[in-house]
Amino acid sequence: MATAKDSARRRRSGGRSANRRGAGPTIRQLPWQIPVNSDAPTEPLTEEQVQAIHDGAMRVLEEIGIEFLNDESRDILKAAGCEVSAGGTNVRMDREMVMEKVKLAPAEFTITPRNPEHRINIGGRNMVFVNVSSPPNCSDLDRGRRVGDRESYRDLLKLTQYFNCIHLAGGYPVEPVDIHASVRHLDCLYDKLTLTDKVPHAYSLGSERVEDVMEMVRIAAGLSDEEFEATPRMYTNINSSSPLKHDWPMLDGAMRLARRGQPTIVTPFTLAGAMAPVTIAGAVTQFVAEGLAAIVLLQCVKPGVPCAIGSFTSNVDMRSGSPAFGTPEYMRATQISGQMARFYGLPLRASNACAANCPDSQSAWESAFSLWAAVSAGVNVVYHAAGWLEGGLCASYEKFVMDCETLQQLMVYMQPVSVTEDDIAVEAIREVGPNGHFFGCQHTQERYETAFYSPFLSDWSNFESWEERGAVDTPRRANAIWKQILAEFEAPPMDEAIREELESFVERRKREGGAPTDF
Amino acid sequence: MATAKDSARRRRSGGRSANRRGAGPTIRQLPWQIPVNSDAPTEPLTEEQVQAIHDGAMRVLEEIGIEFLNDESRDILKAAGCEVSAGGTNVRMDREMVMEKVKLAPAEFTITPRNPEHRINIGGRNMVFVNVSSPPNCSDLDRGRRVGDRESYRDLLKLTQYFNCIHLAGGYPVEPVDIHASVRHLDCLYDKLTLTDKVPHAYSLGSERVEDVMEMVRIAAGLSDEEFEATPRMYTNINSSSPLKHDWPMLDGAMRLARRGQPTIVTPFTLAGAMAPVTIAGAVTQFVAEGLAAIVLLQCVKPGVPCAIGSFTSNVDMRSGSPAFGTPEYMRATQISGQMARFYGLPLRASNACAANCPDSQSAWESAFSLWAAVSAGVNVVYHAAGWLEGGLCASYEKFVMDCETLQQLMVYMQPVSVTEDDIAVEAIREVGPNGHFFGCQHTQERYETAFYSPFLSDWSNFESWEERGAVDTPRRANAIWKQILAEFEAPPMDEAIREELESFVERRKREGGAPTDF
Repeated sequence: MATAKDSARRRRSGGRSANRRGAGPTIRQLPWQIPVNSDAPTEPLTEEQVQAIHDGAMRVLEEIGIEFLNDESRDILKAAGCEVSAGGTNVRMDREMVMEKVKLAPAEFTITPRNPEHRINIGGRNMVFVNVSSPPNCSDLDRGRRVGDRESYRDLLKLTQYFNCIHLAGGYPVEPVDIHASVRHLDCLYDKLTLTDKVPHAYSLGSERVEDVMEMVRIAAGLSDEEFEATPRMYTNINSSSPLKHDWPMLDGAMRLARRGQPTIVTPFTLAGAMAPVTIAGAVTQFVAEGLAAIVLLQCVKPGVPCAIGSFTSNVDMRSGSPAFGTPEYMRATQISGQMARFYGLPLRASNACAANCPDSQSAWESAFSLWAAVSAGVNVVYHAAGWLEGGLCASYEKFVMDCETLQQLMVYMQPVSVTEDDIAVEAIREVGPNGHFFGCQHTQERYETAFYSPFLSDWSNFESWEERGAVDTPRRANAIWKQILAEFEAPPMDEAIREELESFVERRKREGGAPTDF
Repeated sequence: MATAKDSARRRRSGGRSANRRGAGPTIRQLPWQIPVNSDAPTEPLTEEQVQAIHDGAMRVLEEIGIEFLNDESRDILKAAGCEVSAGGTNVRMDREMVMEKVKLAPAEFTITPRNPEHRINIGGRNMVFVNVSSPPNCSDLDRGRRVGDRESYRDLLKLTQYFNCIHLAGGYPVEPVDIHASVRHLDCLYDKLTLTDKVPHAYSLGSERVEDVMEMVRIAAGLSDEEFEATPRMYTNINSSSPLKHDWPMLDGAMRLARRGQPTIVTPFTLAGAMAPVTIAGAVTQFVAEGLAAIVLLQCVKPGVPCAIGSFTSNVDMRSGSPAFGTPEYMRATQISGQMARFYGLPLRASNACAANCPDSQSAWESAFSLWAAVSAGVNVVYHAAGWLEGGLCASYEKFVMDCETLQQLMVYMQPVSVTEDDIAVEAIREVGPNGHFFGCQHTQERYETAFYSPFLSDWSNFESWEERGAVDTPRRANAIWKQILAEFEAPPMDEAIREELESFVERRKREGGAPTDF
C-alpha cells in the first residue's frame, strides 16, 4: 500500500494540471467532485415486501438454480457447497451460503485510476457517473448516424475526459468497428489510457482481452503487479444472459479481475415481459437471484473483493417487443432495486437511459426520469450517464453534452441547503422593505456570484434575444459546444517512458495476433 | 347541501358522456382520476431548520409587517387585533394570532364544477394538474409565436377539456388580447364554461369581474346562490407583489370569493435575488410570511374558508435578471416549501415550469425537474402543468401535448406497485427456465395488456422504422396530435336553458359596459 501511495504522489502534479484543463475556459463547468446524495431514498415497498422479494429470489437460487456456463465457476461453487447438476450447468445454492458470501462484499470501496485525483468512491451515499458505453452506432447533427469508428471513439473519449461530471471512462463510448476485433481492445485501451486518466474498464469478452487490459492499466499507472493488486484500479461490468444464465466469457473475465482484487458490477438484463416476468416484483426478484449468484461466485474466488449489483430492469413495449427506458415502471423497478441493494449491503448501479431516436424532448424527459429514478433509488453508479440514445444503440455527441448539463444540475441539487440565520435573511428583508429590490442589497452582493448554478447549455434569455441570435435550439447549441471542446482538447499528461511501454505492449500483442475471435 | 347533491345527480349522465368523449378514440389516454402521491416527501431541512424558517417568517410578520394596499382588508385585520400603521398600509400580526387563524383553514377540501364527475380533492396526498395560465403569447409549429387571441384561447381550452390528466380549467391558457379588456372576462368565461366542465377559476382583477365570474359559474352549474355557497365550486389564485405587498385587486377578489365560501391559492412571487433574498432559505421565509398574511386575512373574512399556499420560489439568472425554472435551486425551494406547507397544515401549489424558448430538450428537462420537485415536495396542485414555455410568456400547443404525456407517466408512476406472491412470480420463472422467453408464458399472457403504461406520444420504435416513417421528432408528433384533437373535439353537454341564461348574462353585462379598465 505504501508503495502505491508513493507512486500516486509522484503523479499528482500531472493529475492536477489535467484537472485544471478539464475545468478550463471552453465552458464554465463544475470542478471535479464525487456527488453525495443526501436525499432519503424513495421506498415503494414495505419491509415485509422487501423480505418477500428476498424470499422469492432465494427460492429461485435454492429450487430453480442458475446456469453457470463455465466449468471453472461450477467447480468453485461446488467446492463451496453448491449443488451442481450432474453433467449439467445448473447450480443451486442455499440462502445461508448466499447471505454469508454476499456479506463479504464491502458496502463501499474506492477505485484509483492513473491520476489519483480521479479516485472514486462507490457505495454509501456516493454517486458517480459513467460515459455511454457500447453502442454500435454514433451520431451528430452534422454527419448523422453512422457505424462507430476509431475517430468517433476517440472523440467521445475526449468528451469523457473533458467533463468533470463524468467520473469513469467506462465501456467504449462507441464500438470502433473499423478496428479488427482481434486487436480492437489493444488500440481502444491505448486510446483510453492516453486520452483519459479516469477509472478504466475492461470488457469481459475473453481471457486474453481481460489479461491484456489489466496489464495495460497497470503499465499506464506505473504500478508493479503488487501495487496493482493492492487496491481497485479498474473494473468490469458483466451481464447475465437472462433468464437465469451467466455466460462463459463474462464469468471468466469477472473471476480474472477478482483474483487481482479488481471489482465487478453484475448487471442482470431483466427486461420485464421478455427475459424476466412481466411484473415489476417478478423482474426484480429475478434480478436479485441472477445478480447475487455471480457475486457469490466472486466472493468464493476472492473473499471481500468489491462487487456492485446493476439494475437494468425495465419494461418492453408489448406491441413491438422493443425495450423502453425512463418509464414509470423503470423508475419503480430502480427504486425497488435500491431497496434490495441496501438489504444486501451492496452498491447499486443503474443507467441514464432513454429509448428516443434523436436528442429531442422525448430523449430529455426519458433521461430526466431515469436520473430521477437513480437519485431517488440511492444509486451509486450511473452508467450511460452521458450520450446514450435509442435504448443504447447509438451514442450521440449532442446528447452527451446535454446530459452533462443535467448531471451538473443534479450535482448542485445534491449540495446541502444552508439554513443559517444569515440565510434566513430577516435583516435583508427588513433592509429592502416593501418598495425595494434585492439585487442591490448587501446580502445579495455578498452572495450573487455563487448563489445559483449557472448552466453552460441552457438558454435562459428571453424569446426576442434568443430569436435575434438565430433561435438556436438545444441540440444545435450542444453541437457548437462539443466542437469547441474537441478543438481545444489536450490529453492529460503521461510520462513518456510509460507511453512507450504501453505502445510496445500493444505492438507486441498485435504481433502475437491479439485475441482469438469467433469469426 | 342536499339540494346541491340533487342537482349534481341530475347532471351526472351528461358528465359521464363528456368523460367518455375525453377518453375517446383520438389518442389512448388514461381515464379521469385524481392521482394520489404515496411517496414520502423529500425533506432537505431538519425539524429545527423548519422551525428556524417559521421563526424568521413570524419575525417578518411581527417586526417588519406586510403592506395591505386595500382599506377594507386593513380594517378587517385591525379588528382582528393586528397593528396597522397610522395612516399607512403596513400591517403587523403576532405569531399566536397567525397560527390560530391559519389553523382554521382546512388541510383538505374539494371543488365541484358543473360536471360533478370532475370534482377534485385538494390537499393530503392528492395531486391535481392545471392547464398553463395567463401567457400573453402562444405558439405552434405551423404559425409560430403570436400574441394570444380568442381562437387560440378556445383551442387551448379544448385541449384542457380533452385531456383527462388536466383536472382544472385554471387561468386563461392564453390571454385573448383581441377581446377588449372591459368585456374579456365575459367572453372568456362563456367559452370556458361551455367548452369545459372542469373546475373554473376567476382572476382577481377587479370587483366587477370577480362578481361576474362567480355569477356565471353559478349559472353554468344550474345552482341557486345557496347551493353555490354551500361548497367550493371554483377558485382564484392571487400573487403577492413581492416583496411584502398585497395589492388592491388581488385582496378584493380573494375576499369576495371567501365571503361566498370559494377557495383562494395565495402564491407569493418570490424570485430569489430579485423580489426575495438571494438565499433559498430567505426566499422561502419571505414566501411563508407573504402567503400566511393573506391567508390570515381570508380566515378573518370567513373562518374555515379553504386556502392553499402557492410556491413560485425560483432563482433569477444573475447575469440577465431573467427568471429561471426547473433549476436545482427551484427544486430545493419547492421541497422546502412542501415542508413548510405541511408544518402549517395547508395544501401546496407549485408549477410545471421551464425557461426554454421552444419545445426542445431544454424545455423537457426543465419541466421534468419541475415535476420531480412537485412530486418529491408533496405538491397538491401543479399549475401550468401543460403548455408552458418561456417562463410563462408563451403557451405552446405542442408543449401542451408533450406535458400531458409526461403527466400521464407520473400518474402511472404514482400507482402502487403490487407485490403479491403471484407478482413475485417464482413459478413463472420456474416454468420459463433458463432457455425460455417470458412473452409466451401464461403469467405474461394474463397480464401483458395492462402491465405497462403505453404512451401516446413517445416513439419507442427502432431507428430504422422511425427513419422510414420520416424521422418525426417529438414536437412534430405532438403537432399532429393536437390537430386531431381539435378537429374531433366535441364540447361537453350543457342544458340549452342554462346556455341561454349564460348568453343573456353576458349580453346584459356587455350592454352595461362590462368592467372598468385602466386605459
